[in-house]
Amino acid sequence: MRLGTALVLSAPSGAGKTTLVHRLLQEFPQFAFSISCTTRAPRAGEVDGRDYHFLTKERFAAMRSEGAFAEWAEVHGNYYGTPLGPLRELLAAGRDVLLDVDVQGAAQLRLSLHNAATVFILPPSMQELERRLRSRGTDSDDVIATRLANAGKEIAEARWFESIIVNDDLNRACDELRAIYLAATLRTPLHRTVIDTLLQ
Amino acid sequence: MRLGTALVLSAPSGAGKTTLVHRLLQEFPQFAFSISCTTRAPRAGEVDGRDYHFLTKERFAAMRSEGAFAEWAEVHGNYYGTPLGPLRELLAAGRDVLLDVDVQGAAQLRLSLHNAATVFILPPSMQELERRLRSRGTDSDDVIATRLANAGKEIAEARWFESIIVNDDLNRACDELRAIYLAATLRTPLHRTVIDTLLQ
Repeated sequence: MRLGTALVLSAPSGAGKTTLVHRLLQEFPQFAFSISCTTRAPRAGEVDGRDYHFLTKERFAAMRSEGAFAEWAEVHGNYYGTPLGPLRELLAAGRDVLLDVDVQGAAQLRLSLHNAATVFILPPSMQELERRLRSRGTDSDDVIATRLANAGKEIAEARWFESIIVNDDLNRACDELRAIYLAATLRTPLHRTVIDTLLQ
Repeated sequence: MRLGTALVLSAPSGAGKTTLVHRLLQEFPQFAFSISCTTRAPRAGEVDGRDYHFLTKERFAAMRSEGAFAEWAEVHGNYYGTPLGPLRELLAAGRDVLLDVDVQGAAQLRLSLHNAATVFILPPSMQELERRLRSRGTDSDDVIATRLANAGKEIAEARWFESIIVNDDLNRACDELRAIYLAATLRTPLHRTVIDTLLQ
């Protein structure tokens, strides 16, 4: 039995991460997802323990100071965090876990998880990124300018990721993400019992 | 332009490495091979600088003491070595290089080359390895016993390789080697100019 692989993905808005993840999950539906903790109120239909673990700010702060989060962030005054214990339990049980996080989250996960495969998805160019954001037709010029400025800051963090994918051809990018995932499941430290058993 | 990837493969005799390499090269014929140096005499038809660089023992020893080999070994009284300079030049020019070496060679390559992807190919079991060696019908019981003992020693070194492939299903093992190679070409340090160019 091997240990599970943590696949950590980040990308600026418009790089195509959602489509790539969707295609990866079509071939590998066995991925587990960790349930995040949040201090925001549940929305209609959301179930505690299924969609999120809904926590008070006090409880969240207590967990944070105990180091109970693999990564956490504040977004618009609410706190979000990935609890480390359940994540480690999934990995120890051989389940692969997909973590879709921002660049700060990825930086924290690198410290929390050994053997995490961290992948940053890049647009082919800033011009193409702008074109994609505009073609959605949903955002004002101001919002697009903010997204582009943020994308620049995030891309500057790409160098800290283990691997990068340039999403200029969707099929090739999907094949590359698949390869990074499969290769990550073949890392020797996840398979030590295989070697030990062979040598018995 | 990205830097090249060094793919380093080792396996005990009978693990199926030759077939896996053959299949990998069918899809990726662009691999470069480094030309080894050797102190053994050229055989009929072998061309200096194409098949090997044929060296005197004195020249080989001088190069070795200068640190000019990425890895070297003595086999049956002859010396063999992979010259580091041409290897680095290929990688710097963006060529991917396949290095098929024994476990000692791989250990030396880990020190010589950053970002080398080291892969060990395992048989499904020692029983299956023995069956494969016997089914060749070419080796005596003594030779097979020696090969199995050597295989055990080599497999004990597998834990020092970055990735392992258990070759119990040829198609799956081929897909895994392909994934490891592709993923290795996507490592961020090979692509730093991509990120720099995007941010210009």
